[in-house]
Amino acid sequence: MVSFILVSHTATSVPHFSLNDLCGGAGRMDLVARVVQTSLCVSHGIREDVICYLVLCSDPRGRIIRFHGADLRRFNPDERSTAALIKKALGIPAGSLFREASPGVSIRVGGLAELLAMERREKRKIAILDEHGTDIRACDDLLCDTYVLSDHQNFTEDEVLVLNEYEPVYLSLGPVVLHADHAIVLLHNERDRRAALLNVEN
Amino acid sequence: MVSFILVSHTATSVPHFSLNDLCGGAGRMDLVARVVQTSLCVSHGIREDVICYLVLCSDPRGRIIRFHGADLRRFNPDERSTAALIKKALGIPAGSLFREASPGVSIRVGGLAELLAMERREKRKIAILDEHGTDIRACDDLLCDTYVLSDHQNFTEDEVLVLNEYEPVYLSLGPVVLHADHAIVLLHNERDRRAALLNVEN
Repeated sequence: MVSFILVSHTATSVPHFSLNDLCGGAGRMDLVARVVQTSLCVSHGIREDVICYLVLCSDPRGRIIRFHGADLRRFNPDERSTAALIKKALGIPAGSLFREASPGVSIRVGGLAELLAMERREKRKIAILDEHGTDIRACDDLLCDTYVLSDHQNFTEDEVLVLNEYEPVYLSLGPVVLHADHAIVLLHNERDRRAALLNVEN
Repeated sequence: MVSFILVSHTATSVPHFSLNDLCGGAGRMDLVARVVQTSLCVSHGIREDVICYLVLCSDPRGRIIRFHGADLRRFNPDERSTAALIKKALGIPAGSLFREASPGVSIRVGGLAELLAMERREKRKIAILDEHGTDIRACDDLLCDTYVLSDHQNFTEDEVLVLNEYEPVYLSLGPVVLHADHAIVLLHNERDRRAALLNVEN
């Protein structure tokens, strides 16, 4: 099981946004939706062994939305229908435990610190993307369990402090800095290649 | 200059589609929009040396829409605004030569055969993605000039005949079959890495 965590600094955490203005009024919800899509979709299918977490920081208490590949039903890869699932999740009362809003999509109150504490309890190894990090193609530690990405803004100082508590691996994807959704495509490809190699060796 | 050609078998070629139903009524226009986005966008910028061609086959005469990175203005990466540019292009009268509909976006009548004939006049080397092709990481011929991709459907027999006239290179991206937009992310990454390596060597 692999997790992708997107920290979104601008996407709205209230359900009153318009599906017709994801890029503007909803605070770059388009990018958030594409991250869900690249985390979970392959040609004609879903990656069932993936969880995509969205951490929406625009609310001080924060919201964490979880998309679990194995449990999703009738999932379309387009931005609008993904944003509609996010909107539906934001519309239910959220507490300190995950609550299901639709099949495979759950929500709770919380931020990056709470989410990483959960991942630590499961002894998961955490990676962050950093243009000065180790090239994923050269890195033994590639097969981390959890990858944390930021949206179009850098991690805040507070987020960096939280992340550093978990002694993350720093990974670089190549010479050009990319959107978070494109980064996930590259991470999946490297993981797929290594998994296929392991299958051949065994 | 690199070109990505997406052959779309289902996306509508008339401008009367709803921006609220890209995935359904517009015939998977969401995928078409994402292909434009992954061809052209990097974090906080546009790849100016890229042309993305969309070949819309749902009209018997065909439509070719060209997005030229160097000429695009106020380009947002979300599906809806890209689809709005496509809709605008489909709304102008199209002939046998490209005509600009908005900055960097042009349209003409035609199909894959006409487009590849244009590319051949410029002596461009053509590649097709094929799961049985040569791994891009191992391939000398990676740095082709033109990559031809199909949408969620395979190339038709007629399209394969047209493509074979150009003696294309067959490239594979990895063990998992991906959406066309994800494939373009991987192609760009391999090209970026090789270009960076060449810059270091020189």
